[in-house]
Amino acid sequence: MLAPDPLSERQMIPVDFVDSLSELAGSTAVLVGETAAPYCTDWRGRYSGNALAVVFPSNTQQVAEVVKLCAANQVTIVPQGGNTSLCGASVPLQQGVQIVLNLSHMNRIRAFDATNFTMTVEAGCKLADVREVAEKNNRLFPLGLTATQKYCEIGGNLSTNAGGIGVLRYGNMRDLVLGLEVVLPDGRVLNGLRSLRKDNTGYDLKHLFIGAEGTLGIITAAVLKLFPLPQAEATACVAVRDPDAAVALLSHLRANCGDKISSFEIISRSCLDLVFKYIPDTREPFASKHEWIIITQLADVLPAPLDLALREALRSFGDGIIEFEITTNQDHAELWWKLRKNISEAQKREGISIKHDVSVPVSRIAEFIARANAALHKVFPGIRIVAFGHMGDGNIHYNVSMPDAAQNKMFIEQQEDAVNKLVYTVVRELNGSISAEHGLGQLKRDTIRDYKDPLELELMRNIKQVLDPRGLMNPGKVL
Amino acid sequence: MLAPDPLSERQMIPVDFVDSLSELAGSTAVLVGETAAPYCTDWRGRYSGNALAVVFPSNTQQVAEVVKLCAANQVTIVPQGGNTSLCGASVPLQQGVQIVLNLSHMNRIRAFDATNFTMTVEAGCKLADVREVAEKNNRLFPLGLTATQKYCEIGGNLSTNAGGIGVLRYGNMRDLVLGLEVVLPDGRVLNGLRSLRKDNTGYDLKHLFIGAEGTLGIITAAVLKLFPLPQAEATACVAVRDPDAAVALLSHLRANCGDKISSFEIISRSCLDLVFKYIPDTREPFASKHEWIIITQLADVLPAPLDLALREALRSFGDGIIEFEITTNQDHAELWWKLRKNISEAQKREGISIKHDVSVPVSRIAEFIARANAALHKVFPGIRIVAFGHMGDGNIHYNVSMPDAAQNKMFIEQQEDAVNKLVYTVVRELNGSISAEHGLGQLKRDTIRDYKDPLELELMRNIKQVLDPRGLMNPGKVL
Repeated sequence: MLAPDPLSERQMIPVDFVDSLSELAGSTAVLVGETAAPYCTDWRGRYSGNALAVVFPSNTQQVAEVVKLCAANQVTIVPQGGNTSLCGASVPLQQGVQIVLNLSHMNRIRAFDATNFTMTVEAGCKLADVREVAEKNNRLFPLGLTATQKYCEIGGNLSTNAGGIGVLRYGNMRDLVLGLEVVLPDGRVLNGLRSLRKDNTGYDLKHLFIGAEGTLGIITAAVLKLFPLPQAEATACVAVRDPDAAVALLSHLRANCGDKISSFEIISRSCLDLVFKYIPDTREPFASKHEWIIITQLADVLPAPLDLALREALRSFGDGIIEFEITTNQDHAELWWKLRKNISEAQKREGISIKHDVSVPVSRIAEFIARANAALHKVFPGIRIVAFGHMGDGNIHYNVSMPDAAQNKMFIEQQEDAVNKLVYTVVRELNGSISAEHGLGQLKRDTIRDYKDPLELELMRNIKQVLDPRGLMNPGKVL
Repeated sequence: MLAPDPLSERQMIPVDFVDSLSELAGSTAVLVGETAAPYCTDWRGRYSGNALAVVFPSNTQQVAEVVKLCAANQVTIVPQGGNTSLCGASVPLQQGVQIVLNLSHMNRIRAFDATNFTMTVEAGCKLADVREVAEKNNRLFPLGLTATQKYCEIGGNLSTNAGGIGVLRYGNMRDLVLGLEVVLPDGRVLNGLRSLRKDNTGYDLKHLFIGAEGTLGIITAAVLKLFPLPQAEATACVAVRDPDAAVALLSHLRANCGDKISSFEIISRSCLDLVFKYIPDTREPFASKHEWIIITQLADVLPAPLDLALREALRSFGDGIIEFEITTNQDHAELWWKLRKNISEAQKREGISIKHDVSVPVSRIAEFIARANAALHKVFPGIRIVAFGHMGDGNIHYNVSMPDAAQNKMFIEQQEDAVNKLVYTVVRELNGSISAEHGLGQLKRDTIRDYKDPLELELMRNIKQVLDPRGLMNPGKVL
């Protein structure tokens, strides 16, 4: 069993605790009251809490000292990066007895080794900045989060094992890191900033902290893997008959073009209609309307004629393709990408919806969509399903609402649990995941208990217990 | 602290323990006495021990029952695959009170999903067989261990996080797996056989068991990632001025040819001389003798003219290259690979040596070789250094001996520790690893304590304690 949740006990916080924080980090690096409020609500405004203080340490030593101070006073800690999380992991709970430990001031690039294809960065570096520094040095850092990369930070990317576009070719954040520096819940610093491709000297501890959403320690720096910059690109917009054809097409393209495929995104008609409704300067990619659109991109470090390869692969596919167009012109490709990148924004303007971020084996995506659609339409006639996402990774964003705004509000209030249950049941039957890339945070902390093997949850709790026996790190999240 | 080593206590093993094993697994699946002996010595004959019995379960349920029986009787377990380990992890200790749990009878391929690019295999499947099944289905399983792949098994590959050729492009074994089935030390079965590219629902437990050398549980099955089969290949043999030039060349090739580079191996003159001496039908790759040779291979799924790309990249490199030759003919390439693949065999025929399997950042390989060479030559004049390996991964096999056989025997007997210390000190100064791909096993169990951060070792012991509190799994190895 875990230690009792510290927040459920009466907190005896010394009156000079915030003063002590200021002594450690500097008074300008500690916010309280109203100035702290922006750090207590997530960027979508879905989760909101209260903090005793928000502290911005400027180096690893300060993080360690703050953690030691908190440990000595049994004050729990919410690690925070850019606060762009979608599941409420980076927001404090209600009681106002936690501190938010924000890593944004730790934003130095500690080392850049072009020959080793690595860079060592602090947790507070913004993803977009890391990508830019890499590119200026003729290297690629491939994590791409279209909506948030100007705001999100590497520490958060690591703590949530971020996905995004590009996973098909380069993997998740977990796959893009060689070493970590972590401040443990007792304030000791685990220095694992090795930039080695191979190291078989015992258990690989870094993987515990990646994706742990700050519940096991605070990631303060990382050695990131870099890649050669692609020199050639080709993008196709493909109208396919149905998701079955899309699944077969992906497999066909991988077999024929290999890991040059850096993206393979699927968009349903309902997404397109919303984008056309709300986003200026968007239009149908083809003269005819189609139910399912794929945007796929090939990239190569060698300056190869990828458009020819892509054309050949699409032509040889067979009758699952209704029509397609290919371009090597980036502006042209961007018109298609604009459709994909604005789906979330268009949905937001239309109103709220019940969102799911699920994954299944790639080979079963069509089956997932068909079964989930059928189950939902049967119980809730007239609903609208907005399905899109990183099909190349088996990851579908599958969102449900009623087209009528007034009806929708009541539908969501009354039926969210029922809808989740129908969708997640199909996910479970297909051996999938109810959180493919967004994590658990507060949002799915309870739900996961119904869908994950109790033995796995027990092992997670045991590991939490051994690393954070006093439950100081981000209580109320994940576990 | 760990529980006391069970082997150091008086063992009270019931007289009918082996009978009980036979009841669980079948009498033909339990060996004792002389018939057990071949499983108690590793393939190089370096480690030898004694077992109470060797048991060959035929399915996961039997593994679980055997583990429960052992747990009930405090009998410790040595998990074993093909027994090709180089560090003694898969061999029982001396006392004859352990069982060897050999997975070789669990060799079914449970599922093959070409569309998802995955296959689900049992731990006892041989690596070569897995590669062959994948290839017959037009897919690549990229782990390549030239010396042992006909004998080693997937469970062992996972438990040692195997490397080999191809890591530069495809990663280590850890990177090639999506899910694991594991029998825990209490006999419960962790069913994590998911074939998902994305799953962010808590701590990623599988990474604990990968590379743990059987000290945390028994891997019984895995979902492996597959890749498209390459259609085009080109191989170059390059004589470079020195290791500095080799490091720069690797970086230049990656930047220009990208991850088409599937191998980049370095061979020193001392390796070549040994190969020519002992291996028939081998000869200098060039008319002139050179001190350092690189063999590098490009591969692509698209049928591209890779020889032209490679030629262009090598020509544009500058004066670090003395001469080079390129071929797309596999037989021709194999003549070069024969030099690389026979280094271990040639060394073995020459006599014993002090072997090191180290890694440093790729950018510091030349520095490692220069500093280690200088340190050794200073203390031990006249020694021979045989350096070669997976330079693309920063992984050098660095072996030390005296050219004179009689002198060599005494040198190794008396100076092994001193040589190790000189080499490992340089490794530590370059923030490297003293075991890049072979693991710790028995061989480096003590040594690692001098070179790894005590905090990392403490966390490893804590994790061992929580997963295997009674110390039943492979005691005397790793920790």
